[in-house]
Amino acid sequence: MKGNKKISIKEIAELSGVSVATVSRVLNDNGRFSEETRKRVMDIIKEHDYTVNMAAKSLRVSKSKTIGVVVPDINNEFFSTVVLEIEKFFFEEGYSVFICNTSQNDLKEEAYFRSLDSKLVDGIICISGREDIPLGVIKRNIPIVCIDRKPKSGTNAIYVESDHYLGGFMATEELIKKGCKRILTLAKGKSLSVNKQRLQGYKDALIKYGFSVDENLIVKLNGNRSSFEEARDIVSYLIKKGIEFDGIFATNDWRAHGALVALQQNNVSVPEKVKIVGFDGISVSEFCYPPITTIYQDKKTIALEASELLYKLIIGEEIKGSRHVVIPVSLVSRGTT
Amino acid sequence: MKGNKKISIKEIAELSGVSVATVSRVLNDNGRFSEETRKRVMDIIKEHDYTVNMAAKSLRVSKSKTIGVVVPDINNEFFSTVVLEIEKFFFEEGYSVFICNTSQNDLKEEAYFRSLDSKLVDGIICISGREDIPLGVIKRNIPIVCIDRKPKSGTNAIYVESDHYLGGFMATEELIKKGCKRILTLAKGKSLSVNKQRLQGYKDALIKYGFSVDENLIVKLNGNRSSFEEARDIVSYLIKKGIEFDGIFATNDWRAHGALVALQQNNVSVPEKVKIVGFDGISVSEFCYPPITTIYQDKKTIALEASELLYKLIIGEEIKGSRHVVIPVSLVSRGTT
Repeated sequence: MKGNKKISIKEIAELSGVSVATVSRVLNDNGRFSEETRKRVMDIIKEHDYTVNMAAKSLRVSKSKTIGVVVPDINNEFFSTVVLEIEKFFFEEGYSVFICNTSQNDLKEEAYFRSLDSKLVDGIICISGREDIPLGVIKRNIPIVCIDRKPKSGTNAIYVESDHYLGGFMATEELIKKGCKRILTLAKGKSLSVNKQRLQGYKDALIKYGFSVDENLIVKLNGNRSSFEEARDIVSYLIKKGIEFDGIFATNDWRAHGALVALQQNNVSVPEKVKIVGFDGISVSEFCYPPITTIYQDKKTIALEASELLYKLIIGEEIKGSRHVVIPVSLVSRGTT
Repeated sequence: MKGNKKISIKEIAELSGVSVATVSRVLNDNGRFSEETRKRVMDIIKEHDYTVNMAAKSLRVSKSKTIGVVVPDINNEFFSTVVLEIEKFFFEEGYSVFICNTSQNDLKEEAYFRSLDSKLVDGIICISGREDIPLGVIKRNIPIVCIDRKPKSGTNAIYVESDHYLGGFMATEELIKKGCKRILTLAKGKSLSVNKQRLQGYKDALIKYGFSVDENLIVKLNGNRSSFEEARDIVSYLIKKGIEFDGIFATNDWRAHGALVALQQNNVSVPEKVKIVGFDGISVSEFCYPPITTIYQDKKTIALEASELLYKLIIGEEIKGSRHVVIPVSLVSRGTT
C-alpha cells in the first residue's frame, strides 16, 4: 500500500506494463483488453487508491464510448455488411456498437432513438428507413449520420449514399449496349429517394439512347413478400401473359435472382433471350448460376465514410467539405448480360 | 395547475386516454408510443407535478428495460433470423434490444459483455461462439440464455439448441434412402459442440445402414473464406482428382449451394449423379435452382424459447423443467435428392 502518493495515468501504464490507451480503456470500461490486463491495471490502481480514482472519474464522465446503429433489416445482406464495417471501425477506436433493428417500423425507430439516447451513446448512424429523422425524441445534442436516407431539408444532418441515379443509368445502358430493346424494370413501390433515383437513371438512359419510356415495362413491387419471390412470380406471370421483353433491370440482386429463376423455369435462356442486371453486389449475385451482372455498391467505403464523419463529429473535429457524400458505383459484368 | 393533488398512474392513464401500460412506458421512456402520446401523458403529468414525479422515479429505477443479444455474425442469415425473432418478442414486451456483433472474436465478446453490463441491460442472450461465457467481466448478477452454445459445466446457464445430432443423422439417412453409397460430408473444422453433433449423426447413420465411415470422405473446411467458396472449390478439386462420391451432406446451406454450383460447372447432373442435403433452411436453399433438400432449423421456435426463458428469469419467475432445451429439426425434401 502506497497510500496517497500521487500517480498519473502514464505511471499506471508503466507500472502495469501496458499503454496509456489501454489504461484509459480499462478505466472507461469500454474496450478491448483481456481480463488479465484489467486485473493488472486495477491492481496497480488499488495500490494507489485515492488520487487515481479521481482520474478515473474524470475520464469516466467524458464519453460513454458507445454508438448506436439504427438499421431497417439486418437480414438484408447489403445492410448487414455496412453495419459490420461500421462496427469494425468503431471497435478499433475503442467504442462499443449497439445495433438496433427497426423492421422499417416508425414507432420502433422512435423507440430505439429514445433508448439509445437514454443509454448516453455518443452518436448514431441511421441507415435507410423513412426520410426524416425522429430528432424530437432525442434529448441530448448528439451527432447523427445517415446512410441511404436523405434527411428532410432544414435539418443539418450529414448523409452518405451511393450514386443511385448513375447506377440505374449504367444498368440500363449495359442492357442497351448488349442489344436489348424492351427493358423491363423491377422497381420498389415505396417512393424513397433511393428508389426514385434508380428509376430516374433507368428512364434517362432509355431516352438518351432513343427509346421511349413504356410505363407497362415499369413494374412496381410492393414489398409484402421477399424480393426474390415477388420478382420470380411477376416475371413468370408476365411471360405467361405474353408480355415481350428482352432485358430486365432489377433494382436489387434478390429481385434479379428471382427473375433469373423464373426465366429458367419457363425455359427462357439467359442471357441469349433475356439479359439481366441487378443492383447491390451481394453474394447471391456472385454465387448463383449463371452469376448475375450487377451494379456494385461499395459497402465498405460507404461505411467508412459514414463512420469517419460520425467519429469526427464525436471528437469535435470540424467537417470540411460537403455534408452530402456520394460514393461511386460500378458495373460488374457477369453471365447474365 | 392542480398543484399538489395526489394522482395515481391509473388516473393519469384515464386523463390521457391511454392504458396504464402506456403511461408506464412513457415514464420509463423505453417503449412503443408515439410522440403525440408522450406529449399527452407528459402534459397530464406536468399538471400534477410533484406526486407523479415520485412515481415516475420509482418506476424508473426498477428495470432498464433493455436486453443485449451477442451474436457472432449478423451477416449469416441463420443468426440474423433468430436475432430478429428475439427482437420482435422483447420489443412487444416493451424492451429495447441491443444487438452486438462479435465476429467470433473472444476479446470483442468480452468487451461487449462488459459494455452491455455497464449499460445496465436486464439480461443477455448469446448465440454460438466459444463454449464458455465470459462471466468474469460481468459485475451484476443478470440472467443469460445461450443458443447453439453449450456452456461449460459448472455454470448454471440455460441453453437452447436444435437437435444437431438428429439433423446430421436424418440428412445422411435421406441420402442413403435415395440410393447413395459414397457420401461425402462438408463439415466445419472448428470443434464446437454443434459441429461435432452433426458429424456424429452422419457417422451413426452410415453405421446403422451398414456402411463404414471413410475418413477420406470427411472434408473439414477451415472457415477462412465464405462457406460457399470453400465448398465450391473443394468439390471441384475432388471431382478433378477423381474421388468418387454420389451424395453430399453439407453442414450448412451455403456449403450445399457451393457444392451444387461446382457439380453444375463440372457437368455432373444433380440429383441424377450426385445428391445433396444441406443444413439450416435459409433462403439460398429454397431459392437456388434446383432448390436444395435441407435440414430445417426452426429459427422462430429457437428464438421464442430462448426469449421466453430470459424473460421469465428477468421478471423473477421460476424456470420449471430442463435448463437445456432441444428444438426438433425437420427434413425438407427438394430438388437435390
